[in-house]
Amino acid sequence: MTALVKMETDGATNARVQAVFDDIKHTRKVTWINNFWRVLAAHAPTLERIWANVKQVMSPGALDPLTKEMIYIAVSATNNCEYCIHSHHAAAMKAGMTEEQFAELLAVVGLANETNRLANGYRIPIDEQFKPKT
Amino acid sequence: MTALVKMETDGATNARVQAVFDDIKHTRKVTWINNFWRVLAAHAPTLERIWANVKQVMSPGALDPLTKEMIYIAVSATNNCEYCIHSHHAAAMKAGMTEEQFAELLAVVGLANETNRLANGYRIPIDEQFKPKT
Amino acid sequence: MTALVKMETDGATNARVQAVFDDIKHTRKVTWINNFWRVLAAHAPTLERIWANVKQVMSPGALDPLTKEMIYIAVSATNNCEYCIHSHHAAAMKAGMTEEQFAELLAVVGLANETNRLANGYRIPIDEQFKPKT
Amino acid sequence: MTALVKMETDGATNARVQAVFDDIKHTRKVTWINNFWRVLAAHAPTLERIWANVKQVMSPGALDPLTKEMIYIAVSATNNCEYCIHSHHAAAMKAGMTEEQFAELLAVVGLANETNRLANGYRIPIDEQFKPKT
Amino acid sequence: MTALVKMETDGATNARVQAVFDDIKHTRKVTWINNFWRVLAAHAPTLERIWANVKQVMSPGALDPLTKEMIYIAVSATNNCEYCIHSHHAAAMKAGMTEEQFAELLAVVGLANETNRLANGYRIPIDEQFKPKT
Amino acid sequence: MTALVKMETDGATNARVQAVFDDIKHTRKVTWINNFWRVLAAHAPTLERIWANVKQVMSPGALDPLTKEMIYIAVSATNNCEYCIHSHHAAAMKAGMTEEQFAELLAVVGLANETNRLANGYRIPIDEQFKPKT
Repeated sequence: MTALVKMETDGATNARVQAVFDDIKHTRKVTWINNFWRVLAAHAPTLERIWANVKQVMSPGALDPLTKEMIYIAVSATNNCEYCIHSHHAAAMKAGMTEEQFAELLAVVGLANETNRLANGYRIPIDEQFKPKT
Repeated sequence: MTALVKMETDGATNARVQAVFDDIKHTRKVTWINNFWRVLAAHAPTLERIWANVKQVMSPGALDPLTKEMIYIAVSATNNCEYCIHSHHAAAMKAGMTEEQFAELLAVVGLANETNRLANGYRIPIDEQFKPKT
Repeated sequence: MTALVKMETDGATNARVQAVFDDIKHTRKVTWINNFWRVLAAHAPTLERIWANVKQVMSPGALDPLTKEMIYIAVSATNNCEYCIHSHHAAAMKAGMTEEQFAELLAVVGLANETNRLANGYRIPIDEQFKPKT
Repeated sequence: MTALVKMETDGATNARVQAVFDDIKHTRKVTWINNFWRVLAAHAPTLERIWANVKQVMSPGALDPLTKEMIYIAVSATNNCEYCIHSHHAAAMKAGMTEEQFAELLAVVGLANETNRLANGYRIPIDEQFKPKT
Repeated sequence: MTALVKMETDGATNARVQAVFDDIKHTRKVTWINNFWRVLAAHAPTLERIWANVKQVMSPGALDPLTKEMIYIAVSATNNCEYCIHSHHAAAMKAGMTEEQFAELLAVVGLANETNRLANGYRIPIDEQFKPKT
Repeated sequence: MTALVKMETDGATNARVQAVFDDIKHTRKVTWINNFWRVLAAHAPTLERIWANVKQVMSPGALDPLTKEMIYIAVSATNNCEYCIHSHHAAAMKAGMTEEQFAELLAVVGLANETNRLANGYRIPIDEQFKPKT
C-alpha cells in the first residue's frame, strides 16, 4: 500500500514537523517515527493537533496506559482499521498485554458487537433502572 | 419504544426461560430481569445461547470485570447502541467506575474513531516493525 | 421526532410527486403513503430516483420478496436505522415472515457481527481455497 | 497478511482444540480446517464457544442454510469484513447460490445502506402503522 | 433523553469551564451554550481539548465553512449521530445551506454508502490508474 | 485482489453492457472503463441502474462536482471502502482538489467521527433550538 500523500522522512523535514517528531521520540522514548506521523506531516497543523490530542488522551490518568491501549484496539477492531489494530496491538504488547488478555479483549469486542445488533434489531426499550437520575 | 416482539414477564414463563432467568438472578445477585433478557426470551434457544456467552465472556479472567465493562461501552458507543450504552454504563458504575474513568474512556473512544479515519483515509501503510513475526 | 424537511401530505402535491405516490399505491396495492416517501418528496429528483431503485431491486427475481426483506432488515439492524428496521419488519411480516424466522434472522445478524470483528481483530489471512479463481 | 497470533496447524494441537477440529470436519463433511478456526485455536475457550454458536445458529431451522449464508454476506459486506465475505461467499456457492442470486443480494445490500442514510439523515419519523402493537 | 453526566449550566461553572464557554460565545457570536459543551464540561480537559480542535478544524481555510459543515453532516448521517445531524444541520442552515443543497448532500451520502458496499462486497481490485505515484 | 465475479473486458461485451460503457466514456470524456463498472457488468440491470444513479447524483447541481467528490470521500473514509477512497480521490484531484483541501477534508472527517461518539456515548439531549420547526 502507498499513502495518498508523500510521507515525510524522519530527519529531513521542516521545523514544525521536526519539533513534533522530536517530541514523539522524547515522550515515547523511541528512536524512529512510525508511518502514521510521517503521513500526517504532509499537513503541519494536523500533525501538531493530533499529536497534542494523543499525548493528552493516552497519558496515564484515571485509566492506566494498557487499559487505554486495549480500548483503542476495541474501537479499531470494531471499525476495521487495519493500521490502528497493528500499531495499537504493538503498543499494548509493549505495555505488557498478554496473549490471554488479548484473547479476552477480542472476545468482549465480538460479543458486544453481537448484542449491540440484538438490542437494536429487536428495538429493546431501556429499563427505567438504567436511566440516569437527573 | 416498544420491542418488536412480546417481552416475557419475569415469573410467568416457560421452563427453559425460567431456568435462564433464575441463573441470571443467582449469578448476578439481582432480584429483577432487565429488558434485554425479557425480549430474547421470545426465542428460547437464543436466550440460552446468549446468556451462556455473556456468562463465559464477562466473568473475571485475565481481564477484570470493570475493564470488560469499559470495553463493552467502547464498542457500544462506537456502534451507537443506546440500550447497550445505558445497561453497560450502569454495570460499570456498579463495578466501581468513577466519572473520571468514564470521561477518559470516552476520550479514548473518540480519539480512536478519529485516527481510524485518518489512517484509512490517507491509506497509511503498516510499518514493518508493527507486523507480527511468523 | 420531526423530519428535517417538510413532509408532503398525500394528495396535495405537485405533479411529479403525485405520479410517484400513485405508482407506489398501485404497485404495492396500498392506500396510504408512508413517511419515507413523504419526506423524499421534498426533492422530486430524489423521490423519483429512489422509488425507481426500490421498485427494480425489491421486485421478485432470483430471490423471493421475503428473502429480500430479510436481507434489508439484516443491513438495517447492523447499521441501526430505526426507521428502516420498523418499516422492513412490517413489510417482512406482511410477506409472511414468522416470529421464528425473525428470531433466526437476528441470530445470524448478531453472530456475523461478532465473527466479523474476530476475523478483523485477529487479522486472519484468507485461505487459498476461498479465493476466487481467475 | 499474517495473523496477530500463531495459527494452529491442523493435526498437531492440544486435546480441546483437536476435539473442536474433529467436530468441524465431521459436521461439515470437510477434510481441512480453515484459518478462522486455526486462529481462534490460540484461545481454546473462544474456539469452543464460537464453534458452538456457529453450529447452533447456522444449522437448518426456520430459515434454510442458503438464506442464512446470504444474510451472513449481507452483514459482512456492510461491515467490510474481507475474510468473512470470502468464506461465506464460498459457503453460499457450495449451498447452491447462483451468480444471479449473489448479484441481487448485493443489490439489496447496497440499496439498504443507501436508504438507511436517507432515513437517518432526514430524521424521518416512524409511521404509527409500523409501530408494534403492545 | 437525559445525558449520562450532569450538564453544566451556562453561567455557574468553574473557571476553566467558564473560559471555554466565554470563548465559544465570543468566537461564534452566540449568546447561549448548546448541550454538547455543557455535557463535555463534566471533564474540563476534554472540554478544552475538543473546543480547541473544533475551533482549529472548522475555521475557514482551504475549504469554506459551509463545505466543512456539509462534510460534518455527511459523516454524522453515515454514523447515525442524531445529535450531530441536528446541530450541524442548524449550523449549515445558518451558513447559508439551501434545501436543494441539503437534498443533494444527502443524495451523495446515500449513493456513496451504496457503492461502498458494492465495491467491498464484490472485492473490486483497485485500478492501477488510481494508485498514488510514489 | 481478485473480484468475486468475472470482470468484463472493455470492448467485448453484450449490447446492454456496451451501451453503458459507451455512455460512461462519452459522459466523462475518458477512454477507458475502471474496474467498478467492469465488475458490475456481470449483472446488466445493476450496471444500468447504478450508472443512472451516479450520472444523476454526481452531475453539477446546487452543489458543484468537487464538493460532491469530497462528500463521497468523507463517506468512504468513514466506512473504510478502499476502492472508493482511491477512485474518488483520483476524481477529486482531477476536479481540482488541492493537497491542502484534502488535508482539511480528512481533518473534518476525523473530528466528526470523534464528536459523533462523544455525543452518542454521553447520550447528549438535543437542544430545543436545533429541533426543526413544524
